[in-house]
Amino acid sequence: MVQLIDGRKAAQTVNEATKQRVKLLKQRGIIPGLAVVLVGHNQASERYVRMKEKQAQKLGIYSVLKQLPEDISEVALLEIISVLNHDDRINAILVQSPLPAHLDETKVIATIDPNKDVDGFHPVNVGKLYLNLPGPYPVACTPRGVMTLLEFNQIPVKGANVVMIGKSSIVGKPLAALLLNEGATVSVLHSQTRDRQDFLKTADIVISAVGKAHFLNDADFQPQTTVIDVGQNLDENGQLVGDVDYPTEPTNIRSITPVPGGVGPMTIATLMQQTVEMSEWGL
Amino acid sequence: MVQLIDGRKAAQTVNEATKQRVKLLKQRGIIPGLAVVLVGHNQASERYVRMKEKQAQKLGIYSVLKQLPEDISEVALLEIISVLNHDDRINAILVQSPLPAHLDETKVIATIDPNKDVDGFHPVNVGKLYLNLPGPYPVACTPRGVMTLLEFNQIPVKGANVVMIGKSSIVGKPLAALLLNEGATVSVLHSQTRDRQDFLKTADIVISAVGKAHFLNDADFQPQTTVIDVGQNLDENGQLVGDVDYPTEPTNIRSITPVPGGVGPMTIATLMQQTVEMSEWGL
Repeated sequence: MVQLIDGRKAAQTVNEATKQRVKLLKQRGIIPGLAVVLVGHNQASERYVRMKEKQAQKLGIYSVLKQLPEDISEVALLEIISVLNHDDRINAILVQSPLPAHLDETKVIATIDPNKDVDGFHPVNVGKLYLNLPGPYPVACTPRGVMTLLEFNQIPVKGANVVMIGKSSIVGKPLAALLLNEGATVSVLHSQTRDRQDFLKTADIVISAVGKAHFLNDADFQPQTTVIDVGQNLDENGQLVGDVDYPTEPTNIRSITPVPGGVGPMTIATLMQQTVEMSEWGL
Repeated sequence: MVQLIDGRKAAQTVNEATKQRVKLLKQRGIIPGLAVVLVGHNQASERYVRMKEKQAQKLGIYSVLKQLPEDISEVALLEIISVLNHDDRINAILVQSPLPAHLDETKVIATIDPNKDVDGFHPVNVGKLYLNLPGPYPVACTPRGVMTLLEFNQIPVKGANVVMIGKSSIVGKPLAALLLNEGATVSVLHSQTRDRQDFLKTADIVISAVGKAHFLNDADFQPQTTVIDVGQNLDENGQLVGDVDYPTEPTNIRSITPVPGGVGPMTIATLMQQTVEMSEWGL
C-alpha cells in the first residue's frame, strides 16, 4: 500500500524546535523579526501572507506586514525595502510574489539585503547555493522544506537518481542544486523535454513542480518510486490537488507527499525556521 | 566516420571578431584591459597565463600580469584585487587557480568586483546565470566556449538530452546551467552516480569533464551521440588526451571535440571575447 509522507507531522517537529529557539533567544534579549511586503490584492497572496503572520505570532516571532497599494511605484517600493534593510528589528524580509506587472521583480529582489533575503531568491544567495559554498546563507524555503521532509522520512538522497520536473527559480532550480549538493544524480525535466517516460522509469525519487492536476499517475513510475508532489492545483471539482494521481492500493509509488498535507506545511515551517536562524547569524 | 569538432577553427572566428571589436573601441579611445593575478609557481598555471597574455597582446588588449609570491598573505592579495577593482584601465580581472592552500579561494573570488569578474566565478554572477537573468554579466569561459562551439557547429541544444559528467564550479555546474537555460534536458552525473551507462544510452550530447584518460569509449554511447570532451589529461605516454577514446572508423559517436584542438582553444578565445565585451558594458 502506498505510504503517505506526512508533511504536517514534519512541519510540527520543525515548528516545535523553532519555538524553543525563539524562547532561548528571548532570554538573551533577541526577538527574531520578519517583514512581509505585500503589493496589491491578489487573493491567494493575501491568504498566504495571513498564514505566515499567524504562524510567526504563534512562534513568538515579531512580524510586520507592509501592505502596499497595487499601483505603488517601483521607486517607492525599493525605498520601503531599503528602510527594512536598515531596520534592526527586522532580520528577514519577504516580498510576496507575484508582483503587479509594472514592477520589475528581479530588481526588487536584488534590492533586498542578501543577509535578510529569507526567501533565498537574491542572486548572490542562489549563486552560493549552486556553488555549494559553506553557509550560512538563506535558501529557498520550499526546496529546503522538501530536503527536510526527505531527511525526516529517512529517504536517502546521496547517489539516488532524482528526476526534477520543473525548472522554476522558486522550486525546480534551487531544489536541483540542493539535491546535487547532497550527492544525488539529478535530471531536470521541463516543458521542452522529450522522453519524459524514459527518465521517470530510471528514477528513485521524482519531484513534480509542474502545476497541473493529473499530470502524472502511478503507471508513469517504476516500482518503489518516492514521489514529492510540489503541485498545488484546483481540480474539476474545485478541490486542492497536486500534480500526481495515485491509488491507495498496490502501486509503483512507494511513498508520496499528499496534497494538501505534504510539501505545503513545510514551506511555512521552513520560512519560520530560517527567520529565526537568520536572527542568530549576526550574533 | 567520426566527425571532429574543430575548436581551433571556431576559436579563430571568435578571435577575428574580438580583434575587430578592439579596433572599433580604440577608435573611440577605449582599450580593453585584462589583469591576471598569478600566485606562486605552478608550472601549468604559468603556461596558461603566458598563453593568455600572448593572446591578449595579439588582439590589442591591454594586459597586466600581477605575479605574486607563493607565501603572500591573504590580506595582501585581497588588497591587490581591491586596487585592480578601482583601476580604470582594467575591466577584467582573473585570478589563476589553483591558489596555495593558505589562501581562501572563495573569499578571494568574492573580493573581485562582479563587474570585472571575467571568469564568471563570483557567486552573484553564478546566481544570475543559474536564474537565467537578463545580462550582461560574465559567464565562466570554458562553459561559454562550449556553447559557442555547439552553436558554431549547428548542434541543436533545445530539447536535446544532455548528460553532463562532472559537477565542478568551473565547468560542470555553469555548463549545466547554460544548457538548461537553452532548453536542454540536463542530467548531471558525478562520482556518486550509479547507472552511468543507462544515462549515456539516452543522451544526444554527452559532456565529459572528469579528468581521467580513457574514462569513456565509443561503446559507452548510443549511435549518433555528440561528445564534448573537456578533459585535459596526460596518458601513459605523456601525451595530452581527453577523457574519451574513440576510433576513427564507424562509430556510435557522431562527432567529438578532439584533445588537443577541441574545447581548449575556445576557453582562451572566450576569455578574450568576454574581456572586450566587459569593456563595453559601462559605455
